[in-house]
Amino acid sequence: MSTKWCRFQAGGKSSYGRIEGDSVLAIDGAPWEAHEVTSNRHALSAVKLLIPTVPSTFYCVGINYRDHIIQAAKRRGVEPVFPDKPDIGYRANNALCAHGDPIVKPRDSGDVFQYEGELVAVIGKQGRNIPQQRALEHVFGWTIGNDVSERTWQRGDRTLWRAKNADSFKPMGPWIVTDLDYRTMTTVIRLNGEEVDRFATADMIHDVETYIATVSRYCTFYPGDVVWMGTDGSPRNMKPGDVCEVEISSIGTLRNPIVAES
Amino acid sequence: MSTKWCRFQAGGKSSYGRIEGDSVLAIDGAPWEAHEVTSNRHALSAVKLLIPTVPSTFYCVGINYRDHIIQAAKRRGVEPVFPDKPDIGYRANNALCAHGDPIVKPRDSGDVFQYEGELVAVIGKQGRNIPQQRALEHVFGWTIGNDVSERTWQRGDRTLWRAKNADSFKPMGPWIVTDLDYRTMTTVIRLNGEEVDRFATADMIHDVETYIATVSRYCTFYPGDVVWMGTDGSPRNMKPGDVCEVEISSIGTLRNPIVAES
Repeated sequence: MSTKWCRFQAGGKSSYGRIEGDSVLAIDGAPWEAHEVTSNRHALSAVKLLIPTVPSTFYCVGINYRDHIIQAAKRRGVEPVFPDKPDIGYRANNALCAHGDPIVKPRDSGDVFQYEGELVAVIGKQGRNIPQQRALEHVFGWTIGNDVSERTWQRGDRTLWRAKNADSFKPMGPWIVTDLDYRTMTTVIRLNGEEVDRFATADMIHDVETYIATVSRYCTFYPGDVVWMGTDGSPRNMKPGDVCEVEISSIGTLRNPIVAES
Repeated sequence: MSTKWCRFQAGGKSSYGRIEGDSVLAIDGAPWEAHEVTSNRHALSAVKLLIPTVPSTFYCVGINYRDHIIQAAKRRGVEPVFPDKPDIGYRANNALCAHGDPIVKPRDSGDVFQYEGELVAVIGKQGRNIPQQRALEHVFGWTIGNDVSERTWQRGDRTLWRAKNADSFKPMGPWIVTDLDYRTMTTVIRLNGEEVDRFATADMIHDVETYIATVSRYCTFYPGDVVWMGTDGSPRNMKPGDVCEVEISSIGTLRNPIVAES
């Protein structure tokens, strides 16, 4: 049975919690380790949701959906190239922000400022040399990410540091849901309530199992690590005042307003 | 006055500690935050040193010394290009290992498996939009890093994930020393006791102040974050059985043996 876990702040204190209907029950410890369930229950609407995990390493897949590659190639006037192995990259923790937090558009950023709605696998069990057929045993649950990107900077920044890792460019949440089959999910992206993209979440070039097996040949995964699985389609531009939502069926909806840097 | 801080394990417990001569005094909390000094004193030789900080974001500078760029260009038969702004990148926490820990050379890695001795700035104070002239106020202290690199993989891995971030490829330590002037330091690298490189640590194309100011225009630095400042010279190959040492004057010596993956 699926369980829904979050990190939240209430009364100045941060903790993980188990969501039960409209309330959240604080736990001592992280959900993927031995923990105690406390008797501290809060209305979900009364707490501030935090990013559901603070990863030790923040993995992502650069380019992992065919249509996204085709559209990007078209814009640059080149032939699309599909990667023959997973494109393994990183994002930076400073950029993470929670469900509801503003995505702050830097003063000197350009108009081509875009969302990318992504499935996020949250690792629950340490592992190295994980075989593909056992990879999902290392996934604790699933959350949602928005890989916000400034495309002009993206062309110039070799490591995408600023293009994809400026503060607030990585909304993640609202929570983690366990025991789901990602192969049946649908990702829907809305800008100001209007649906702007919809794709089968599992329509990846390299699936979650392949990614985990490939990385873990050389790198140990630790509980709390995240893997962002890439996006499909051809994103539109966001501007201050907009609200971006990424919904993945059976997980929930990650919603963030865009504001201008003051 | 300089203070020397470490993280260590003793009796199954990990803590930060203040090094006083040959002993270490455990503290409650991190050295860069409010903490209490305990009465738990250990002989330094009796504890296991850990990486001196677990960074939230692990920053590095890709190419930051002239001679290193000239030598790398020569090997590739191209003209050297010096970056006109800091090359801002990331490394991954899974790759970190401590002073004394083995650098494990993967079975399928090639012979061009090399050290890169680097100065590491450890952030002590949160900051965004840090002006260059105040950047060093955000540096808590200094440690040493060895940016181990598999050069064949480095040419093929767009993000250098495996080339530079396989487990154990990022030795860091042995400790953090505060209140030093990095402009007077010398970096010396030894392989099996033989000096193989020596350079003025501050001989950087873009200095620590420039890097911190540039990154913090878009990204918040947090206490415990690290910035690896790049290496000079033309590294040699390491093979299992070798011992690599990176010494930076007034900080100490980071020493790691190289072993073959079993």
